Amino acid sequence: MDKGVFVSAFSNGDVFVGETLGTAALILLGGGVCAAVTLKKSKALNAGWLAITFGWGFAVLIAAYMTGSKSGAHLNPAVTIALAVKSGEWSQVPLYLGSQMLGAMIGATLVWLTYLGQFQANEEPTLGIFSTGPEIRNPIQNLLTEIIGTLVLCMSILTLSPKLEAMGTLIVALVVVGIGLSLGGPTGYAINPARDLGPRIVHSLLPIPNKGGSDWSYAWVPVVGPLIGGAAAGLLYNALF
Amino acid sequence: MDKGVFVSAFSNGDVFVGETLGTAALILLGGGVCAAVTLKKSKALNAGWLAITFGWGFAVLIAAYMTGSKSGAHLNPAVTIALAVKSGEWSQVPLYLGSQMLGAMIGATLVWLTYLGQFQANEEPTLGIFSTGPEIRNPIQNLLTEIIGTLVLCMSILTLSPKLEAMGTLIVALVVVGIGLSLGGPTGYAINPARDLGPRIVHSLLPIPNKGGSDWSYAWVPVVGPLIGGAAAGLLYNALF
Amino acid sequence: MDKGVFVSAFSNGDVFVGETLGTAALILLGGGVCAAVTLKKSKALNAGWLAITFGWGFAVLIAAYMTGSKSGAHLNPAVTIALAVKSGEWSQVPLYLGSQMLGAMIGATLVWLTYLGQFQANEEPTLGIFSTGPEIRNPIQNLLTEIIGTLVLCMSILTLSPKLEAMGTLIVALVVVGIGLSLGGPTGYAINPARDLGPRIVHSLLPIPNKGGSDWSYAWVPVVGPLIGGAAAGLLYNALF
Amino acid sequence: MDKGVFVSAFSNGDVFVGETLGTAALILLGGGVCAAVTLKKSKALNAGWLAITFGWGFAVLIAAYMTGSKSGAHLNPAVTIALAVKSGEWSQVPLYLGSQMLGAMIGATLVWLTYLGQFQANEEPTLGIFSTGPEIRNPIQNLLTEIIGTLVLCMSILTLSPKLEAMGTLIVALVVVGIGLSLGGPTGYAINPARDLGPRIVHSLLPIPNKGGSDWSYAWVPVVGPLIGGAAAGLLYNALF
Repeated sequence: MDKGVFVSAFSNGDVFVGETLGTAALILLGGGVCAAVTLKKSKALNAGWLAITFGWGFAVLIAAYMTGSKSGAHLNPAVTIALAVKSGEWSQVPLYLGSQMLGAMIGATLVWLTYLGQFQANEEPTLGIFSTGPEIRNPIQNLLTEIIGTLVLCMSILTLSPKLEAMGTLIVALVVVGIGLSLGGPTGYAINPARDLGPRIVHSLLPIPNKGGSDWSYAWVPVVGPLIGGAAAGLLYNALF
Repeated sequence: MDKGVFVSAFSNGDVFVGETLGTAALILLGGGVCAAVTLKKSKALNAGWLAITFGWGFAVLIAAYMTGSKSGAHLNPAVTIALAVKSGEWSQVPLYLGSQMLGAMIGATLVWLTYLGQFQANEEPTLGIFSTGPEIRNPIQNLLTEIIGTLVLCMSILTLSPKLEAMGTLIVALVVVGIGLSLGGPTGYAINPARDLGPRIVHSLLPIPNKGGSDWSYAWVPVVGPLIGGAAAGLLYNALF
Repeated sequence: MDKGVFVSAFSNGDVFVGETLGTAALILLGGGVCAAVTLKKSKALNAGWLAITFGWGFAVLIAAYMTGSKSGAHLNPAVTIALAVKSGEWSQVPLYLGSQMLGAMIGATLVWLTYLGQFQANEEPTLGIFSTGPEIRNPIQNLLTEIIGTLVLCMSILTLSPKLEAMGTLIVALVVVGIGLSLGGPTGYAINPARDLGPRIVHSLLPIPNKGGSDWSYAWVPVVGPLIGGAAAGLLYNALF
Repeated sequence: MDKGVFVSAFSNGDVFVGETLGTAALILLGGGVCAAVTLKKSKALNAGWLAITFGWGFAVLIAAYMTGSKSGAHLNPAVTIALAVKSGEWSQVPLYLGSQMLGAMIGATLVWLTYLGQFQANEEPTLGIFSTGPEIRNPIQNLLTEIIGTLVLCMSILTLSPKLEAMGTLIVALVVVGIGLSLGGPTGYAINPARDLGPRIVHSLLPIPNKGGSDWSYAWVPVVGPLIGGAAAGLLYNALF
């Protein structure tokens, strides 16, 4: 996740491959850990919040190392927006966002394939494996929580020391673990519009028995909140650094 | 957290921005993990001591990487004192300490905003989310515990190998995890006066239902103990290294 | 785990020593953590899934750092196949695979020696300490899960940035933790034919009281699945990178 | 923990300061985590095996980074013996071992001071906070377990890539976490004679109510086992590398 890579540093083809592959890996592994601790007949059943937060952090680690050389591994529209606001360069933003959404949907489908037997035997609502939801439903409060979490994520990425070189991706992965541990309590820390919306669409389409609803009334919060948080990070960075 | 940066290495403006922003991030994330595992209607409820210690460690990681280039990321009056005793340079100490206190109060307020719904539904004392307290109340013993913990922290920072470069911040974050796991049992390891006093002030001011008292009779221990520990680290370092 | 080392970079003698020693260490530590959390009269009894996944990840870390300079530390036939497909160089493949199988059998025997008292007092089936098994038995689904897990592992290794140098091994170890957390629920993530088949043979031979069967009907899945996953990674890498 | 530093690389004074200070820090933090999860009225009570293993690993991290520049941070007679067998240089061995024993006793005393209130209220045997003991008492089996664990530790240190430079200490710390998770079940992984014998002596001397016996009949196992393991690592390294 090299800094300053955003200004046309990668070809359109590489951006498409990198962001699609990377976001697919991110959601396969991030959704995977939610499946692992939630579904009956899983060896990781009830492994707890620490397992979920490290699972998502290492999902970032795996996906970002795999595709950093292709596209800079944004893997998150909020990160793309933060970098665009910082740099003023917006030409590749639509390509990044589209590839991230496609990748997220592929990743969510791969979670379903990986846990196919468990899903076929499912008896309870499964939306929590795909998308986030609030503990206390209050859109403005939930939005605020997502903005704060994403602001921390994007400020961490924008200020990352170039001296870290390839180790910077490890630091970002641990930042994501930290955000999950500290700020994930109220809403489950989407902090990434593609991470939430892509899998929600896939959840609504997949033939999972007893899967429950896809909670579309909440779907805008984990999209709008992270986008505001990302933009705010870009502005804050330009003001302070 | 570069070593030897303390001797007027940063402008006053950068120190103010770096320490205020960094300590705010530290307390947002550190207080956040305490809120996450403590408050009802949080996804991380009862996630346990390992979650708390990793949460605080990654809070240091996030805050220190974010602001290391601005101010050296002390984020802790005890660290500032340790570096001042080591170097003999005291001119920026008041600015560091004031910025840290301001940042800590901002961070504690951000914890409240992030978990606003949970706090509004609160039914139990909440001081533990903001500040530390002893398991067995004995000021001299509690002071000793805080001195030892801070001495380990500050000796680790003072002796950090310059060869680590930007990875040194990761090591310090893991040091903080280790101190929490090993030395946090009796008093909850404040090891940082601003981390304890700033949020305690905010706790006394915030309109949280059923929040309980702010335990001012204990407040001096996690201020004085870490300051002694930091000064002792500076003296010990100069004697041995 | 240097990239591009596979084309006759190591002598046959070094490959034999490195892969045998390394896979023995891998299985000693990986099987060891399964023994630690499973066997009665172990201090780690019921330490949970997070302990198992970190235990296997640090097993990779220990084994790969120990033998990386000898043989590149594949320690896994799927990794060897992935590198062979990528590079088109197959001459040392049989030597790698044979050494890995030998090492895995030695490692499984060392687990038995380390936990000898516990095994002698054993009263329950012990295959889970040696080899993997599915939660829901469906060979095609189980195969798919193993293919996906191994594909993620091998793509991570093939795309590893050379800038990481010696730190790359740490990243691979954390990748293995992540795969365990996220994709290990259905089948226990063999993702390595030698890791599963070698210890299964040893399980069938060791004089452990009440050890139960060795489940040979399932044994082909964690061999064939990872080999397909490794080959698929090599092809995917050559297509996309 | 630079490799090859053993041949008179450090002055006698630096060895004394480094090994005494470092082993004191190691035992303060390692014994500390055992106190934290064991003693009543500790915030970390029952935090579990993962907390213990990470606590000991980060104890190594803290102690070794603090004193690596002084003495190479052996902090363990088994490591000193392994390096002496490897290099053939024995002149400073007595100084290293004596300093490690002194440091371990200081560290154990510091654990007692840090948890003084908890120890004063103690009602149960406390030896487990200071020294190791077997789950199933069988000296030959326990010896074998300690030999294997120490062999893995010392082989990891001897083969550590010099390319890791200052990051090597982090890897060693994680190696220790891994050994604890995987091989600690039967005996509690002393893998260090000073870590076990020094605190056992201190346990026998301290005025802790209801502290129970110091189990001197077992005391030779965690001394002899690690020394054999360390020597075996030196011989194995010279044979294979």
